[in-house]
Amino acid sequence: MNAYAVIMAGGGGERLWPVSTPELPKQFVDVFGGKPLIRHALDRLHGLIPPERTLVVTGARLVALTRRALPELPSENIVGEPCRRDTAAAVAVACGLVRRLGGPDAVGCILTADHIMTPHSAFRAALRDAISAAAKFDSIVTMGIVPDHPATGYGYIECGKRVDSGTKTAFFDVKRFVEKPDERTARRYLKTGRFRWNAGMFIWRAGVLSAAFADAAPDFSPLIDSVATAKSVPALLRRAYPSLRAISVDFAVMEHAKSILVAESRFKWDDVGSWQSVPNHFPSDADGNVRLGKTALLDTRGSVIVSTDDHLTAVVGLSDVVVVHTRSATLVCPRDRAQDVKKLVKSL
Amino acid sequence: MNAYAVIMAGGGGERLWPVSTPELPKQFVDVFGGKPLIRHALDRLHGLIPPERTLVVTGARLVALTRRALPELPSENIVGEPCRRDTAAAVAVACGLVRRLGGPDAVGCILTADHIMTPHSAFRAALRDAISAAAKFDSIVTMGIVPDHPATGYGYIECGKRVDSGTKTAFFDVKRFVEKPDERTARRYLKTGRFRWNAGMFIWRAGVLSAAFADAAPDFSPLIDSVATAKSVPALLRRAYPSLRAISVDFAVMEHAKSILVAESRFKWDDVGSWQSVPNHFPSDADGNVRLGKTALLDTRGSVIVSTDDHLTAVVGLSDVVVVHTRSATLVCPRDRAQDVKKLVKSL
Repeated sequence: MNAYAVIMAGGGGERLWPVSTPELPKQFVDVFGGKPLIRHALDRLHGLIPPERTLVVTGARLVALTRRALPELPSENIVGEPCRRDTAAAVAVACGLVRRLGGPDAVGCILTADHIMTPHSAFRAALRDAISAAAKFDSIVTMGIVPDHPATGYGYIECGKRVDSGTKTAFFDVKRFVEKPDERTARRYLKTGRFRWNAGMFIWRAGVLSAAFADAAPDFSPLIDSVATAKSVPALLRRAYPSLRAISVDFAVMEHAKSILVAESRFKWDDVGSWQSVPNHFPSDADGNVRLGKTALLDTRGSVIVSTDDHLTAVVGLSDVVVVHTRSATLVCPRDRAQDVKKLVKSL
Repeated sequence: MNAYAVIMAGGGGERLWPVSTPELPKQFVDVFGGKPLIRHALDRLHGLIPPERTLVVTGARLVALTRRALPELPSENIVGEPCRRDTAAAVAVACGLVRRLGGPDAVGCILTADHIMTPHSAFRAALRDAISAAAKFDSIVTMGIVPDHPATGYGYIECGKRVDSGTKTAFFDVKRFVEKPDERTARRYLKTGRFRWNAGMFIWRAGVLSAAFADAAPDFSPLIDSVATAKSVPALLRRAYPSLRAISVDFAVMEHAKSILVAESRFKWDDVGSWQSVPNHFPSDADGNVRLGKTALLDTRGSVIVSTDDHLTAVVGLSDVVVVHTRSATLVCPRDRAQDVKKLVKSL
């Protein structure tokens, strides 16, 4: 199979602060099952796409961390963005890299570095079918997670007609992408059965994605072409990046693309977008508390207590709070305010 | 003036945990105005009782810490209890020490090491008058703080007839000592104007207190006599302490003493018995938060945030909580649950 994985690992480190920081973003922290999320992202591909065909696009300052987390990746497979642009630039680089390595018919898979997807086998089965579909159709394929609750924190994809792909996974035409809905709208989406969560994963032939950029965002085409042919990709990016447009790939390309298919994905997916979602991935005690590290609780319920570095974190008489202690900082907030941590970190 | 101060510094370190610990009890921590409370206890006596006449009774394991905090005290003035007994034993030792140094007519002042009393000048004026009264009358004198709110966390003293002492301070016969009241009772006490807070400070002639022990708790008399005459006080205590009765001086002596006078004390007094009372001693920000150390708050009101060691403590969206971070532990609790910290620490 002429397929490549491109793991996008440019995360900023604000959402799971103080465990994640700009110096050590979410994908590199190991509170989740003893290894960093980016390691899970690689391990998930096991048996489907080998490390030699797995690439990572990340911030230049995170290249060393990435090498340490994924030592089996060839050094040149880890590409650092010299400055932060939005996702369109990173996806254009990914497209160029896949064309460079496999030609226009090679299939590239844009995958995320900091999400939780379980079980790995279900993810792999869906991705395998998505790769087949991308190889077969002149379409970009996206993974659409079947929602199990009316989430307001995710974008949605509305499914159109079913497309026969000859695989176990069901495929649909994408009718439209929609932004994060309010709760009422989210409930309606759930009820219709036609909406999927947009997990930000895209599978495409390099030639198809190049054409989609040329149509909808032609200012990125020179970048794609030069990444595909440049002598030195790092040197090229240092020259080209500063003047690139900062825009998301959804706005720049996906919402304009002629044909996008959604692969119905029934594995459990979570973008771990805030501390609020962390407890879903751990067993809780009799009072509904998720406790990681050295903790002492008295009359405390429904809370998430994370204590690193053998530090003792004690909570008395509170419910539904998040308390996270790291060597450099401590966060205390109600679970339903966990989204605002980003705001706080920005103000620091 | 033949007067001696005996500062009682045997505190256990549970109430202001994690800033105070059994290894570093409240009297030794310096969150309050840059010097430890025990240092304030000595400084308060300035100009009234010199260091040579100031003694400290503390736990044997805290003697070295006390020496470091109070370097101007003669080494033999710091006496370590070889094991924990209650306050009767410590007061008996104090009584013996004062008799040893000044004879039966010397006046001893049992003072506390871990309370806040301001202004120092008002404390000193009241203590000076209490010493005069103790020298003049065959009574034990106690400091009765005029309450400014219906506190439920303190014991009270009911005043009887006024006694003419020839000093500025008003003195009354003690009618009775009462235990910590419930809130309704506390409000009634406040209304009558006859009740004072029992601050645990007692001023007495050594002969008078010896006699009171002999009357009400004669099992302590041999200890008092031998402290007054022993060649080596530390050696004596090591021998005598293990078999002493553990009982408070209030139960053992004060509630039975024939004559106790209360010195009306109008200085501000706080036993700093829990984190709840700490904010009273610091300025608060516009949202009513008291912040010590490196803190970051978002939508947080009426809270006490203490962050030591250059660690950042961040709170989002909570009101009336206490968050205390130290190198070894972090505490999070609602302000009105601060008393329960003791319970938590006991369970550790």
